[in-house]
Amino acid sequence: MKYGLVMDEEHELAGFDLLSEVPYYATIFTTRMTNNLDGYEEMADRMAELVNARKGFLGMHSARGDDGLGITVCYWRTEEDITAWRTDLEHKEAQDEGRGRWYDQYTVEVARVERTIEFRRPN
Amino acid sequence: MKYGLVMDEEHELAGFDLLSEVPYYATIFTTRMTNNLDGYEEMADRMAELVNARKGFLGMHSARGDDGLGITVCYWRTEEDITAWRTDLEHKEAQDEGRGRWYDQYTVEVARVERTIEFRRPN
Repeated sequence: MKYGLVMDEEHELAGFDLLSEVPYYATIFTTRMTNNLDGYEEMADRMAELVNARKGFLGMHSARGDDGLGITVCYWRTEEDITAWRTDLEHKEAQDEGRGRWYDQYTVEVARVERTIEFRRPN
Repeated sequence: MKYGLVMDEEHELAGFDLLSEVPYYATIFTTRMTNNLDGYEEMADRMAELVNARKGFLGMHSARGDDGLGITVCYWRTEEDITAWRTDLEHKEAQDEGRGRWYDQYTVEVARVERTIEFRRPN
């Protein structure tokens, strides 16, 4: 199994790969945070640990720009794997804390990846 | 028609919305740039202008983190709208320039959005 960039903290400037052959699933998590990030990093680390251990998890890519908008894309083998993760008890508690404190706004879009293109500069 | 955050430069800290009712399509464009960004901003502005005028374009969200990874998600009504944009002549010339100079690596994933969740903090 391949993990995405976020999982590879020691190689931040390394490349990334398409994480699977189509079809697979992506959750597009678009966020804007509040100013109260107490406890957020610890929770994010714990969720990364948990999600990595989930059946069907293929990896993730994440970016947050200077304007505060964050986009995290998680990749999954099937839609059922996504549902199982969404309803995981510890994850649900984290979601509740997120809505209570850390997120000003978010959208989650569950999407089926049907076609892919990859480019890598020749050495 | 609603435009995403990227189109709304005067309100960078404003919120964002889900851009349509399901099903709709998303292209997830994950990038890593070279160190040669000459001409890139002008081209990006021109492509934003062109894509906004395309039939079926619903909006976009974009973020690039300190580690250099960029994620741009464009939203479309149908897969045919995506194909038409991909094969647009001026866009194809821009893609060629991008592969020649600006992009070290990228992936494009075309995905069908099937379910959405939205959260907005109560005032």
